[in-house]
Formats: sequence, structure tokens, C-alpha cells
Amino acid sequence: MRDALVAAAFRLFLERGYEQTTVDDIVALAGVGRRSFFRYFPSKEDVVFPDHERCLADMTAFLTEDGVNDAGGAGHEPVRRVCDAARLVLRMYAENPAFSVQRYRLTKRVPGLRAYELSVVWRYERALAEYLRARYADRPDGTLRADVIAAAVVAAHNNALRSWLRSDGTGDAGAMVDHALEYVHATYGPAAPPAERPEDVVVVVSRRGAPLWRVVQEIETTLGRP
Amino acid sequence: MRDALVAAAFRLFLERGYEQTTVDDIVALAGVGRRSFFRYFPSKEDVVFPDHERCLADMTAFLTEDGVNDAGGAGHEPVRRVCDAARLVLRMYAENPAFSVQRYRLTKRVPGLRAYELSVVWRYERALAEYLRARYADRPDGTLRADVIAAAVVAAHNNALRSWLRSDGTGDAGAMVDHALEYVHATYGPAAPPAERPEDVVVVVSRRGAPLWRVVQEIETTLGRP
Repeated sequence: MRDALVAAAFRLFLERGYEQTTVDDIVALAGVGRRSFFRYFPSKEDVVFPDHERCLADMTAFLTEDGVNDAGGAGHEPVRRVCDAARLVLRMYAENPAFSVQRYRLTKRVPGLRAYELSVVWRYERALAEYLRARYADRPDGTLRADVIAAAVVAAHNNALRSWLRSDGTGDAGAMVDHALEYVHATYGPAAPPAERPEDVVVVVSRRGAPLWRVVQEIETTLGRP
Repeated sequence: MRDALVAAAFRLFLERGYEQTTVDDIVALAGVGRRSFFRYFPSKEDVVFPDHERCLADMTAFLTEDGVNDAGGAGHEPVRRVCDAARLVLRMYAENPAFSVQRYRLTKRVPGLRAYELSVVWRYERALAEYLRARYADRPDGTLRADVIAAAVVAAHNNALRSWLRSDGTGDAGAMVDHALEYVHATYGPAAPPAERPEDVVVVVSRRGAPLWRVVQEIETTLGRP
């Protein structure tokens, strides 16, 4: 019944326009009563985004369980974790490309839907930020870092998601989003582990004009050789 | 007249609540006609945020003039420029702390106003992102970088702005926002210029186990000495 309501709603939105379609029109086409509609959807906007509430709940659960199943209790690396959480949203869009592309076009045309979408994006961003704030609770500037990273993750995700939607859902959504999230992770995640143990590498920085004996002396001292 | 309408509106919003106040109530208290109200404000929401349109226009002008007055044509360093653009928003809030704090409390309570605020924040973010997209047009991942930095700047600005509003407008708003924006600039801006010219520094990375003669040979080659 829920799927039938969504299908009827979209058929009418595309035929008549979003503003010109009433809930009564939708339930008439779907052959159900008004009460059935409101059992599933609090408002007409919600039928356009039928899966965000579930996805938000999934994301919160995903972030909350972090650390719980972890023997060490330290949880996952936080930036990686919020990137993985953002992928849950992408998965929801990619489950049904035709529907997602149709909705993208509709949302671009209807200011009320754009406003609704902004409020949903804001809730995702807050979920990520709250998780990061807890993880960075004992860092100086922890809330600032948390808010900035959450915003960066959402912006990167949406940059890739929108490219994919503009391509009419052709292209590899997963690869596009991975690439965008990797950009954020490379900035804020821990540096990639070096291929060899750091103790094995000596870095010498020297002024080009320095005499060679001074450079060699510096290296000897650093290497711990006479 | 415009200021009188804003003052009357806020007095009624605080006394009766936002939803319970009509435009007719506002114009009656201000002693003007409905048409005067709608000459200044397209809707009741707009009277809550009377200065955002002006501020958005100022920001766009500020970003557009970048490079125009610059003999070299290269314009300013882009991340510094968007941080400076964000400070225009802060200045608008800081011009009238009592009003900004009042509005912050009102907006937290009224979902319709939160939605309006999100759409305004989105427009600021897009203005910053469009500027950065143009500046990064010939970089790989230019739009990704632009969107992520714009989001990071807005998140940092709002983190500091909200702290200041929660402190009831006490505290140094400018210093708080400067600190937050510096966090973003340190991440995405150009690295601080080195004290000496880069050509003057040689970096040698060597495995600790490498024989000393090999290291010296490497340095000699790099320094361009026999």
C-alpha cells in the first residue's frame, strides 16, 4: 500500500505538477482512503522522500553501535565512520535510480520540496556532527572540528550524488561517492600509514648553502653514528 | 517604517508567539497599512530576517569584485576570500546583538523559521561555492574542492556564531569567528610561506640502514655539487 501511494503520487506530480496535486487526488488514484495516506506519510512532502526517515534511523543506529561491538571500546576511526555512514544515504538513492532521478527533477522545480530536502540534509549533517562531537569531546576545538568535518562529508557526498543524478543515474554512483569521500578522508583522517616503520626513515632538512661537512655531521648525529 | 515594522513584529512574536501573530496584527501595531508591510517584506518569515537579502547582495558583490581591482587579475587567495566573505554575515549579526539573540531564541522554537534559516544558509553556501568553482575551474576535482570548502567555511562560521548567540551576545563575536575560520584556512589555504625561499632547502629522506656514503652521495647529487 505504501509503495502504491508513492507510485500514484509520482504519476500525478509528473502529469499535473506537484502543487496542483492534492492528497485526495493521490488516494483516489491509489484506491485507498485518506487515513491510509496519513498513516504512512505525515504530509504531501513526505511522500516525495519516503525513505529518509528510515535512512536517518539506520544512520543513527550505525553511528550509535560504533564502539559497542568493539572489544577495545575505542570504536572506529571517526572520519572513516562518518564517511561510511554517508554511504547509507547513497545506497538509498542508488537502490532505485529511475525514481531518484525523477525526484531530483521534481525537487529542482518545486521550492517547497527544496526546502524539505534542505531540512533532511540538515538532519543527516547533525547526526554526523553529534557523533563526531562525542568522539572529539576531549579535544580542543572538538565541536568546531566535528561540525566542519560533518559539513565537509555531506558536501562531498552531495557533490557526487548530484553529479550522478544529473547524469540520469548512469555512471557508477558508488565509485563517484567513494572518490568524493576519499577527498575528505585524506584531509581529516589520520595520515596513511607509512610503508616502512617510521623509525627506519631519517629526514634531513638543510639549507642549500650549508657546507657539506655540516650536513654530514647532522646526518651522523641523527643516525646515531659517530 | 521598515524598522518600525520589524520592532512591532518582534514585540508581538515574543508576547503572543510567532504562529499566533498575523501580518494584520503587525501593521495595526506599527500603524501602517498591509501594503506597506508587503512593500518591504514578501512574507511574515522575511520580517524575522530583515537583513539577509542585503547581506547576500553584499557578499555576491564582494566576491564578484575580486580580481577586478587587481592589476594582476589573479584576484585574492580564494580560501582567504571566502572566509572574508563569511565575515560579512557575522558583522550583520554583531551590529545588533540584542536583536540577534532574540531572533535566535525565536528561530529555535518555530520550525517554519528554522526551515527559512536553512534556506538562507544554503544561499550563502552556494554563493561561496560558485565563487570557488570559478576560481578552481581548471583544477581536477575543482567543483568538489569548491563545494567542500564552502561547506566547511559555513559550518565553522555558524559554529562560532551559535556559540556567541548562546552566550547571549556576550563575548567577542569577531574573535570567535576569526578563530573558527582560521581553522578552515589552515586546512585548505596555501601553506604559510616558508621563511626562506624553497630553493634554499634540501630534504633528504633515507632509510636508517643505508650506508653513510650512499647518503652523502645522494646529498651531493641533490645539491648539485660533485
